[in-house]
Amino acid sequence: MSQPTNETTPQNQIILTGDRPTGPLHLGHFVGSLRNRVAYQHEYKQFIMLADAQALTDNMDDITKVHRNVVEVALDYLAVGIDPTISTILIQSQIPELAELTFYYLNLVTVARLERNPTVKAEIVQRGFERDIPAGFLTYPASQAADITAFKAAIVPVGDDQIPMIEQTNEIVRKFNRIANREILVEAKAVVPEVGRLPGIDGRAKMSKSLGNTINLGASADEIRAAVKMVYTDPLHLRVDDPGHLEGNVAFIYLDAFDPDKEKLAEMKAHYVRGGLGDSVVKKRLEAVLQELLAPIRARREEYAQDKGQVLQMLKEGTAKAREVAARTTDEVRAALGLTYF
Amino acid sequence: MSQPTNETTPQNQIILTGDRPTGPLHLGHFVGSLRNRVAYQHEYKQFIMLADAQALTDNMDDITKVHRNVVEVALDYLAVGIDPTISTILIQSQIPELAELTFYYLNLVTVARLERNPTVKAEIVQRGFERDIPAGFLTYPASQAADITAFKAAIVPVGDDQIPMIEQTNEIVRKFNRIANREILVEAKAVVPEVGRLPGIDGRAKMSKSLGNTINLGASADEIRAAVKMVYTDPLHLRVDDPGHLEGNVAFIYLDAFDPDKEKLAEMKAHYVRGGLGDSVVKKRLEAVLQELLAPIRARREEYAQDKGQVLQMLKEGTAKAREVAARTTDEVRAALGLTYF
Repeated sequence: MSQPTNETTPQNQIILTGDRPTGPLHLGHFVGSLRNRVAYQHEYKQFIMLADAQALTDNMDDITKVHRNVVEVALDYLAVGIDPTISTILIQSQIPELAELTFYYLNLVTVARLERNPTVKAEIVQRGFERDIPAGFLTYPASQAADITAFKAAIVPVGDDQIPMIEQTNEIVRKFNRIANREILVEAKAVVPEVGRLPGIDGRAKMSKSLGNTINLGASADEIRAAVKMVYTDPLHLRVDDPGHLEGNVAFIYLDAFDPDKEKLAEMKAHYVRGGLGDSVVKKRLEAVLQELLAPIRARREEYAQDKGQVLQMLKEGTAKAREVAARTTDEVRAALGLTYF
Repeated sequence: MSQPTNETTPQNQIILTGDRPTGPLHLGHFVGSLRNRVAYQHEYKQFIMLADAQALTDNMDDITKVHRNVVEVALDYLAVGIDPTISTILIQSQIPELAELTFYYLNLVTVARLERNPTVKAEIVQRGFERDIPAGFLTYPASQAADITAFKAAIVPVGDDQIPMIEQTNEIVRKFNRIANREILVEAKAVVPEVGRLPGIDGRAKMSKSLGNTINLGASADEIRAAVKMVYTDPLHLRVDDPGHLEGNVAFIYLDAFDPDKEKLAEMKAHYVRGGLGDSVVKKRLEAVLQELLAPIRARREEYAQDKGQVLQMLKEGTAKAREVAARTTDEVRAALGLTYF
């Protein structure tokens, strides 16, 4: 067996990220992934996947939603500073090789193993599937393995709840390489970003469009203002003079995440805790920070949105480039399985 | 909703047949399907699939077997008189659209429904998978639905044990057309050929290479002779004068299937039943019949086998032609799911 080449420079290492295009991206995505991707694109070869085919798994009842949001999410990418000349942005469904790899990988994983996958288990409960799980949902780890391995991604940033998915990908990689008797596929490393999940404006643990507690990246100034007004703070902080609490206080969690003036923020926190600082002052600061953060993003988003044809052209080029890579891998996989004839 | 056009002439109706290329074809295939296909090709538009990707589902431990047998089975097709200028012979793995359709159809069927499929259930027991079913095996009805619908096959000849597979395909067709809100996919009709299963030479119900009880289509004269010697007859027919039994008597079952002289056969049967006709006489007749049946098939097989490059070229052309049809269907499916962007 040939030695895998681990001596690649980081610049040659491939990183795969992506989103299910089911709605506009929000501050939670910005903190948890988008901000990192803007940095990653200078450090790695970055592929960013718009996982539209994957999104259909549980959106067969609303297929236009997925189609519509592909361009919307691409606009979010461009708006936050992802540069399509150095990152490759691709649309999953337009690369049939990903379905082909999924098809082969389904032979490398048992039903029992899929059912034991903790991420799949949790999501089955969360989505309320019970016994009526679409087969495409149970087999989704094989599809994710196809996405990761098609580009030979060595690094995959994920939330900690997704680590079992990467483990399952690597099991498939090892099993396939054993059958092929050479190192064709590459094992991926799950990287969990330092900054975790941003809570929703209502204080719930997760900012999520289905919970209606988001601030979208394309939010207007008025929408930001209205959202900040609703931000959950300290329910025990009834009068200005009362001592306030920081734990679970979304206003301060957001300020921690976004306020560039850490010194002033530390002073505000101390003042709030000893009493005498009203929520309205905190929220005024939060609004200023968010308006400043989101104004240029919104402006760029609006600019790009004026020429959606150009955005589609960018997606077409990125997808074509990504498809070449995926097709090369798929050729190798097919050949290793003895499925080359002509 | 538009009316499906049922007023097509039979000549325009599409029929899909095929085999898993895991070994040479034998008399069981000849009786159960090949003979019919030679007739079908004049009555319908016939697609014949070499299901190599499907065969991998439970042959991941012996992938060269599948590769090797693709050409062997194609030789069997040509040898029995399937004419590639009127039948379209295709290699499944070389049409990635089939994997793509499978991927989408997985969203249209639940795990519970797949687990209830009687054909899948029976084959899980037969292959001894128990809990460790490869996911590709459980989801195989979605793959079969892809194969059938890609070519818009209206007729699928199957053994009676495969009828639930066609039912499941039609469920997927109806579900998809409902989502698409138009009749894109075509429901298929399962046709069970009159002549059913041929028993093995050892008297077991099924002729099957894994049971080692076959007579292959390419068998040499010596192999045919040796096989006929082993053919199971009537274990109670110990002396020539004993009355013989026809039930379960493989020699007579084969004569029923292949002897063109029905009158003489009827006489032989009567003689055998009343006693006085030895097995050696019956087997001599059987050998003559089989030698006559298989000699021209073997000769044609050997002729084609001399130029495997030409066989591959035929497969390449058939596959390209079939791929065009599958690609058109897949375009329609993708468009109906909102997965068309450029």
